[in-house]
Amino acid sequence: MRVVVPFDAAEPKTRLAPVLDDAERRAFAHCMLGDVLDAVTTTVGSESTVDVLATTPTDVDRADVGVTVDDRPLTAAVNEAIADTVHADETLAVVMADLALVSPDAVARLRGTAGDVVLAPGRGVGTNALVVRAPDFRVDFHGTSFLDHRRTAADVGTVETVDSFRLATDIDEPADLVEAFVHGGERTVEWLTERFELVVGEKERRVSLARR
Amino acid sequence: MRVVVPFDAAEPKTRLAPVLDDAERRAFAHCMLGDVLDAVTTTVGSESTVDVLATTPTDVDRADVGVTVDDRPLTAAVNEAIADTVHADETLAVVMADLALVSPDAVARLRGTAGDVVLAPGRGVGTNALVVRAPDFRVDFHGTSFLDHRRTAADVGTVETVDSFRLATDIDEPADLVEAFVHGGERTVEWLTERFELVVGEKERRVSLARR
Repeated sequence: MRVVVPFDAAEPKTRLAPVLDDAERRAFAHCMLGDVLDAVTTTVGSESTVDVLATTPTDVDRADVGVTVDDRPLTAAVNEAIADTVHADETLAVVMADLALVSPDAVARLRGTAGDVVLAPGRGVGTNALVVRAPDFRVDFHGTSFLDHRRTAADVGTVETVDSFRLATDIDEPADLVEAFVHGGERTVEWLTERFELVVGEKERRVSLARR
Repeated sequence: MRVVVPFDAAEPKTRLAPVLDDAERRAFAHCMLGDVLDAVTTTVGSESTVDVLATTPTDVDRADVGVTVDDRPLTAAVNEAIADTVHADETLAVVMADLALVSPDAVARLRGTAGDVVLAPGRGVGTNALVVRAPDFRVDFHGTSFLDHRRTAADVGTVETVDSFRLATDIDEPADLVEAFVHGGERTVEWLTERFELVVGEKERRVSLARR
């Protein structure tokens, strides 16, 4: 199996701009990437290859992870990876770099699910992770990608989904940070804990993060 | 095993008021309750009992489900259920009535997870479902209930969590409706589909629901 972790190295996590400045967004994105790579490399074993699919040259500083630079949009870059990998009879897994909650167990469930295409839905009808064993499947990450992927996958083979909160929770917006704070990987939690604390609102008892 | 499904029959889903009127909120809440009861009764088998724990008398119109009326707040009512059930050496499962995405598989994973207390975290640090096998465990559903439950459960026994998007997604706010529309149970999807359609926003390609 080859696992690719798409990572926007140029302008990561722009929708977090209301609460994190440029340098913070960059540092936080690298924490999440590190946690995702930890979960993936712990799970997949040495017979698999793991590559960060980065928009610009990126130093991940790990012997067990490669970097493939592709400056095209996500959809084109992932489709190239499918063509390269699945056409050569290897299974491809795609795991987004902002899945701060991802755990080895969640990755194991993803890769252990049979099906020509295995989809992990994200909130907002997105697709946060997938496994492709059908060479003719192509992704399209715009809009309602989970529904589109489920439909197009059914045209080329069997489709399964993975029911995981950890895979469904991508950290895109300020409201998502509380999930990363509570359930995230080690680097993410440490980084957030140094800067934020949990607060429980008066109204509706909603939980959010506030600067320390 | 006894399964209780807490249901606010008096004023259900008040936070959906921006998009659903009173009668709609009531009807929609009953659709979600019906889907939750379908998933639960399909899974647990006839050796288990399933009760709606309702704040006011409620007609669920099913031979396989009982109704227990308890007009106290959720925490007190669930703690009474724990006292009644777990003290009598029966396992208690609690599954919230607004888990529109819940499936038989998700319920099976919940009940099949070993542990004196098994927690299914919800978004926003909530607890959306749990299994209690430790008679001294007590719930408290305010604020950061997942963290509180994990801590207090560790004082009385072993604690496990269930990683499920379907159990993590309670339908509280207008933004949650898109999840129910796409991934929900049969009654919920039918009810929403009659009234709403998916729209993909120009900005950020966010997906939401709009009235038909």
